Amino acid sequence: MTIKQIINNYNEYNKQEITLKGWVSTNRGNNKIRFIEINDGSTVKNLQVVLKMDSVDLAAVEQAKIGSAICVGGTLLTTEKAQQPIELQAIQFELLKGTDEDYPIQKKEITLDYLREIPHLRHRTNVFRSVMLIRSVLAQEIHKYFAANDFLYCNSPIITSNDGEGAGELFVVDDENKDQFFKQKATLGVTGQLHAESYALGFNKVYTFAPTFRAEMSHTSRHAAEFWMIEPECSFYDLKQIIKLADDLLKTVIKNTIEKLPHEFEFLQANVKSDLLDTLHKFINKKLTVLEYKDALEILKAHADKFEEKDFSFGIDLGSEHEKFLAGEYVQGPVAVINYPKAIKAFYMYQNDDNQTVAAFDLLVPGIGELIGGSQRETNYEKLLARMNELNMSIEPLQWYLDLRRFGDAMSSGFGIGFERLVMYVTGMSNIRDVIPYPRTPGNLKM
Amino acid sequence: MTIKQIINNYNEYNKQEITLKGWVSTNRGNNKIRFIEINDGSTVKNLQVVLKMDSVDLAAVEQAKIGSAICVGGTLLTTEKAQQPIELQAIQFELLKGTDEDYPIQKKEITLDYLREIPHLRHRTNVFRSVMLIRSVLAQEIHKYFAANDFLYCNSPIITSNDGEGAGELFVVDDENKDQFFKQKATLGVTGQLHAESYALGFNKVYTFAPTFRAEMSHTSRHAAEFWMIEPECSFYDLKQIIKLADDLLKTVIKNTIEKLPHEFEFLQANVKSDLLDTLHKFINKKLTVLEYKDALEILKAHADKFEEKDFSFGIDLGSEHEKFLAGEYVQGPVAVINYPKAIKAFYMYQNDDNQTVAAFDLLVPGIGELIGGSQRETNYEKLLARMNELNMSIEPLQWYLDLRRFGDAMSSGFGIGFERLVMYVTGMSNIRDVIPYPRTPGNLKM
Repeated sequence: MTIKQIINNYNEYNKQEITLKGWVSTNRGNNKIRFIEINDGSTVKNLQVVLKMDSVDLAAVEQAKIGSAICVGGTLLTTEKAQQPIELQAIQFELLKGTDEDYPIQKKEITLDYLREIPHLRHRTNVFRSVMLIRSVLAQEIHKYFAANDFLYCNSPIITSNDGEGAGELFVVDDENKDQFFKQKATLGVTGQLHAESYALGFNKVYTFAPTFRAEMSHTSRHAAEFWMIEPECSFYDLKQIIKLADDLLKTVIKNTIEKLPHEFEFLQANVKSDLLDTLHKFINKKLTVLEYKDALEILKAHADKFEEKDFSFGIDLGSEHEKFLAGEYVQGPVAVINYPKAIKAFYMYQNDDNQTVAAFDLLVPGIGELIGGSQRETNYEKLLARMNELNMSIEPLQWYLDLRRFGDAMSSGFGIGFERLVMYVTGMSNIRDVIPYPRTPGNLKM
Repeated sequence: MTIKQIINNYNEYNKQEITLKGWVSTNRGNNKIRFIEINDGSTVKNLQVVLKMDSVDLAAVEQAKIGSAICVGGTLLTTEKAQQPIELQAIQFELLKGTDEDYPIQKKEITLDYLREIPHLRHRTNVFRSVMLIRSVLAQEIHKYFAANDFLYCNSPIITSNDGEGAGELFVVDDENKDQFFKQKATLGVTGQLHAESYALGFNKVYTFAPTFRAEMSHTSRHAAEFWMIEPECSFYDLKQIIKLADDLLKTVIKNTIEKLPHEFEFLQANVKSDLLDTLHKFINKKLTVLEYKDALEILKAHADKFEEKDFSFGIDLGSEHEKFLAGEYVQGPVAVINYPKAIKAFYMYQNDDNQTVAAFDLLVPGIGELIGGSQRETNYEKLLARMNELNMSIEPLQWYLDLRRFGDAMSSGFGIGFERLVMYVTGMSNIRDVIPYPRTPGNLKM
């Protein structure tokens, strides 16, 4: 039994005898009565345990400092109008393991900066408890969504000889003796997309959910060297259909996660972002706006005074300030910007008839900016080859990818969601380092 | 609509008009009537499409060679007693994309060895279609099992400064310019366990499901340099409880996967391993046998004539031949061998009172040998530190791990499942290279 189950069904548990193991959140009182709040990790909520002198040895109870593991047994009592509507009247108490004096998670306020120094302990605060519970349920809901919609879960390789994005800074992998384990240059994948495309050609609808890597020397709050990506790929889907999938996926998993973790969202709303649930409900309920890149430029031009970067000629890439304006102020909700200039997008994207743009989309959300990037893929062998040559890409390592176009690849589309960006959006946390258990950034490799 | 849905509910679809996209498996007939088998990746089963001269242009149909993408429309007819109980009487036909002459997946027999050279195409054979569908459902069922049992999905880091097993050959990671991105030695994780332990301490029950890496120069059919691991970790669980979890997890996910993919198991049973379903059903229905390491030695000694390695003195590690005998011949089902000598097991395992053994278990299954390895963890700081010193391990990089023992770590247990080993067991495939989309082994880094 977990505290979450007790809280969600407290009428059932009224007057029941239970035994519970967990960790002490607070321990106060005197030598006649003590109040311990215990947490078992199932929810951000604690359960209050009341211990009285006549039933247990309160001197022993006093030793159970914050963070200690205890086992308590007794009778659950629910009194709806009380400040603590559920409490455990304990008659058994056992200190399973104490904490040393230097246990850093104490009642006093701790900064997120400080907590980043102790990633092995910080999840024992209410903020990280909430964030990591939401992260976990989000991930499980994503798998559930794809399973329910007949997607094949596909594991693209992590170590690869391809550079999927045709750019980007790569981590190089080798064995310790530089023996060249693979007898060729091996890098950590920046995307699972190209391999996933090969699986969509045959399995129709597939997705990956795996770690990806960038050796970028970025010190921003939105970049990490190691992060998880979700990359669906669907044969026979065009740009419009894949945008619809992205929108439905996000709305479904966010809605289900909120329903499963009401206390954690309430906690984050009260302590991290006061309009969190309002923002998410707006997202869930609002129809996705689709905006041509060219039209987006016109809108930005009309509000040029708001931006540092004021060049809105065709061909520029949108900056973070522009993306945040479009989603946060102009649309006030999610917006998919489509049909970007081909020069600023990846080689594999479908070349539109105008010869200028590709059938790409970025899904922008308020506060975060880009959450998803995707496109229809170019399945014309000659056009794809020509584009790769234009970009001076080396063809041989990607011949297999080109060959898919010779073997029944009629049409496909896909996108990538940076999972940590999604967790940031859904939890209201503003730094990527605070939504992944052990963040990896330049110069930072704790544990 | 998918072919799987049609086959599973064929009475509902009788006489319905449908349109379907997929790829040609066979195309035969003459200039009056043609029979195309089409596959859409939802199942190993094809749907037969019948095209007649009076409804479509058969000259165009003839161009749809194996592997081509087509779109067909017409009426579904089900006749239960026919050899093809379901067929599509098509009146619409469109060739969406053809295949070049050198498309390698033809009707003729192809060896698994040859198919390993074309990992981007081999899933378009019935064997790999079946294997990868089973792999996907197994993975989704594993997530489902843990979600239903209140486990937190925890992402341990991939790039790490720790060497979790205290041994093993590591891949080293650095950026291309050898700029020392992390300013310290960084390796690819061989396990997510140590980090998962930190999360179990607080979240109670957690699991990882992520890629792990070994730079071992192994050329066996059971070793890959990159593979996926599932690692649950449960606070307050002892050895007995964690073995029970392992047994229940395996039985549940295998049972559910068989139920969801009957055609794929039938195909593999008919073409890969003739006793596949029998073996799996035995596994699901048989109570797990638990055997002390010491007793296992006695059993092996009594059958010494069967083995190449005949030394069964206390302290030896069991070889693959011994493991296969214990599960395959002696128990004829799954067996958990427990309480191994501490000298042959990892530093973090719980030290039993006999001072000789640790509370470890290996779960052995017929045909595969070791499928799972796990243990109760040593949570006594002094004992753990002493063991690390005995092994001459460097303490500083693992001080954080030791510290968990000072901060409320009362008890925990966990195990690791090599996901590809599990897929091998469940599909009957005998080479790990054939159960992961893009296998990575020494000297082999295709695509």
